[in-house]
Amino acid sequence: MKSDDSLAFATIEELAALLAKRKVSPVELTNLFLHRIERRNPLLNAFLTITAEQALAAARRAEKKLMQGGSRRDNSLLLGIPITLKDNIWTRGIRTTAGSKILSDFIPEEDATVARKLWRAGAILLGKTNLNEFAYGITGANAHYGPVHNPWAPDRISGGSSAGSAAAIAAGLCVASVGTDTGGSIRVPSGLCGTVGLKPTFGRVSIFGAVPLSPSLDHVGPMGRGVVDVAILLGLLAGGDPLDPTSSPRSAEDYHGALRKPTRKFRLGRTREHYWEKLDPEVRRVTEAAVRDMEKGGAVVREVSLPQLKKSLDAATTVSLAEALHFHETAGYFPARASEYGEEVRQRIESGEKVTAVQFIAALDERKRLLAEFEAALRDVDAIAAPTVPVPAPVINAESVEIAGEQVAVRPALVGWARPANFTGLPAISVPCGFTRDGLPVGLQFIGRPFDESTLLRIAYSYERSHDWRARRPGLD
Amino acid sequence: MKSDDSLAFATIEELAALLAKRKVSPVELTNLFLHRIERRNPLLNAFLTITAEQALAAARRAEKKLMQGGSRRDNSLLLGIPITLKDNIWTRGIRTTAGSKILSDFIPEEDATVARKLWRAGAILLGKTNLNEFAYGITGANAHYGPVHNPWAPDRISGGSSAGSAAAIAAGLCVASVGTDTGGSIRVPSGLCGTVGLKPTFGRVSIFGAVPLSPSLDHVGPMGRGVVDVAILLGLLAGGDPLDPTSSPRSAEDYHGALRKPTRKFRLGRTREHYWEKLDPEVRRVTEAAVRDMEKGGAVVREVSLPQLKKSLDAATTVSLAEALHFHETAGYFPARASEYGEEVRQRIESGEKVTAVQFIAALDERKRLLAEFEAALRDVDAIAAPTVPVPAPVINAESVEIAGEQVAVRPALVGWARPANFTGLPAISVPCGFTRDGLPVGLQFIGRPFDESTLLRIAYSYERSHDWRARRPGLD
Repeated sequence: MKSDDSLAFATIEELAALLAKRKVSPVELTNLFLHRIERRNPLLNAFLTITAEQALAAARRAEKKLMQGGSRRDNSLLLGIPITLKDNIWTRGIRTTAGSKILSDFIPEEDATVARKLWRAGAILLGKTNLNEFAYGITGANAHYGPVHNPWAPDRISGGSSAGSAAAIAAGLCVASVGTDTGGSIRVPSGLCGTVGLKPTFGRVSIFGAVPLSPSLDHVGPMGRGVVDVAILLGLLAGGDPLDPTSSPRSAEDYHGALRKPTRKFRLGRTREHYWEKLDPEVRRVTEAAVRDMEKGGAVVREVSLPQLKKSLDAATTVSLAEALHFHETAGYFPARASEYGEEVRQRIESGEKVTAVQFIAALDERKRLLAEFEAALRDVDAIAAPTVPVPAPVINAESVEIAGEQVAVRPALVGWARPANFTGLPAISVPCGFTRDGLPVGLQFIGRPFDESTLLRIAYSYERSHDWRARRPGLD
Repeated sequence: MKSDDSLAFATIEELAALLAKRKVSPVELTNLFLHRIERRNPLLNAFLTITAEQALAAARRAEKKLMQGGSRRDNSLLLGIPITLKDNIWTRGIRTTAGSKILSDFIPEEDATVARKLWRAGAILLGKTNLNEFAYGITGANAHYGPVHNPWAPDRISGGSSAGSAAAIAAGLCVASVGTDTGGSIRVPSGLCGTVGLKPTFGRVSIFGAVPLSPSLDHVGPMGRGVVDVAILLGLLAGGDPLDPTSSPRSAEDYHGALRKPTRKFRLGRTREHYWEKLDPEVRRVTEAAVRDMEKGGAVVREVSLPQLKKSLDAATTVSLAEALHFHETAGYFPARASEYGEEVRQRIESGEKVTAVQFIAALDERKRLLAEFEAALRDVDAIAAPTVPVPAPVINAESVEIAGEQVAVRPALVGWARPANFTGLPAISVPCGFTRDGLPVGLQFIGRPFDESTLLRIAYSYERSHDWRARRPGLD
């Protein structure tokens, strides 16, 4: 058995190889992570529920299967791999709070489709991770369960709302996780915690059993330590689902296999507008260096234009406010149980009442125009490259951050770079691309063509292979 | 040349045969209709613009083409046929008021796609027909241009909003017409005037160049004297249009040819809910007799259930109010030119302001549920049969009508039977099925499967062939 550390920071691929060779057993691996969680979670607050008993039972089942050997398909790379799920993803028999008080005792009778696929592949659930209440926030703070702390600087936010998932991966408390992303909630914490997170194309992964936030913007997607792991997970999670009428019937591709293809000259777009305009100087330094490195490595970088982009941010907020209120009303949570929400989330849900139907329809028009602009740009380039977040992780409870000499409220600063991919439904991935002088991780985002996650993953992988930041670990270890 | 009368009430098919045999010329035909318009339109008020000069020029061109003979494709059945267009359909160089004061001087620089197709086929435009202001009404009344009078009883409404089109066909002032239908505006006046009107599947006929009312409910469709004419016109009008992003790329079928197929045993659905519950006794007598006759003729009649149907009527109103306000705001008409609207339409547009985004989203949910119910019912039957309107034409300016002992406001009474097909996008046709004791026409409606206008037309034709009400004509002649 390898050292504790290197196992806790190994990838699915690496662990699967060790498990196959019986260098480590699923039970050993599960115990290792459970011990790390016990030691480190009190500081990070990444978990809302730790499922130690069920995890060990699942590990024993996985051990048996591994002993039996047999043929090994790609999906069974997950056999015996300890993972986590964001706590707004239904798990049968295990409480699923969605970070809320309202659902604090909710035990689903069914698994979310993605959960069902993971158990079938033999993955082991270590626990359910902390998030903003009802995923309605971007900081990783939670009025009921306390904030998630960033493993790289525990006085700082992890980013959210898939906060605990990113923090747990970064701190070596699980191998990978599945999160949700309505306005950046997979990519923002991945960027701020130095992990990899993919928001697939709208319809690519079933959202059945994910507690809704804003159904036309909601996505479920994989989070991991490297691009390969995210590709392996996407191959398992993707595909049409009769239980999710918004899911596309297109079947999943071999994303893992696609990474083995020889790299070609990718064309990257740098938008004239928005993404590169106002950035924290350290984020600018690190992300521009990353794009330059890709150019040196053979990528072609072109300027592209998205004139509607800035205007669309308000339109996306309009859609999100209205859809969130509609869900909470339909579910019977609001206004019936208004007092049980945290103040911030209650106010946000209430403010959906001010949105008129005409504003909503106008926002849907904006959405079509923005998608048309992105699609035009993506005819000239394979992906658009941009920082994931314009600042490094702010300190917990900060109300504003400084960007290019201006004070900007934390929420718009954190969602503004991620949300266009939710509004257009385009796939987007965040990969670590270096550190600020203060040692905080910085994420680089690629936004690609609809249902072409393969190209997106290949681009991200072409960067990662020459810039493996995984050797650097948070000071917790 | 046949007698004036029989020519004025002949079908496209009949006239095309006479034109081909040179029993009548396009110029003679055009003059005949122009004289009839001159004599009868002052009473009916069916026309907003009479295009006598252009019509005669087009007739001379058609005459030349007919003289040259040559091969005759189905579409060229329209060559030399005098028609009208509802005045919310753009005609290049000819004013298109949409029944409004705001557009009273608007002369489009382009033809609507349907207009362009008609001119290319050699149809002759006699004029633009009267309608409710911006098609926002169901009575055929117009605050600026006066009401359209029903040819069967000029003190009564024609129904609307494609009011002048139906009245002109019924009075022998044109052979056929093209109208629009957002909440019954083709079928209601067809029902009340004893003509045939088809609202195609949403996306089947381009709406490019039709002044919008509520874009997700707007349809353009053919109106005529018989089912065959409507089939001929649909074959010309249908098909994808790059200028209309909501149009379906499916190409048009040979609807005319479909009518020549042998009749099979059609299965008709009679809904338990709504359509047959509350009806004027004469409308009930006539429509039930029609369905019974079809049953005797071999059709199978089954009861089907649509529990969401009644609830959906409010949801459809919600969508329509919000979309109409959004269009009028975007076009710069409202509130900028609020004083130029008629009182009733201004109030209706204003009331769109009260619709919240959450109500709008909830209405879209209703819409999905209703469509699912219709689709389930249409797996058991080929079409749903229902009265087009639950009452015969009310007197002009009536505010309410009596249905089954209750006073009901005119507007909900007239739209309630037609609107479900707009909300679901399903194709629906109205055919004359007899007369009340007072001599007012009654319409029977068939609602069919998406993009299966062929079956719908065949069902309507199977009724029409054994019940040709065309021998009876309004007392004007």
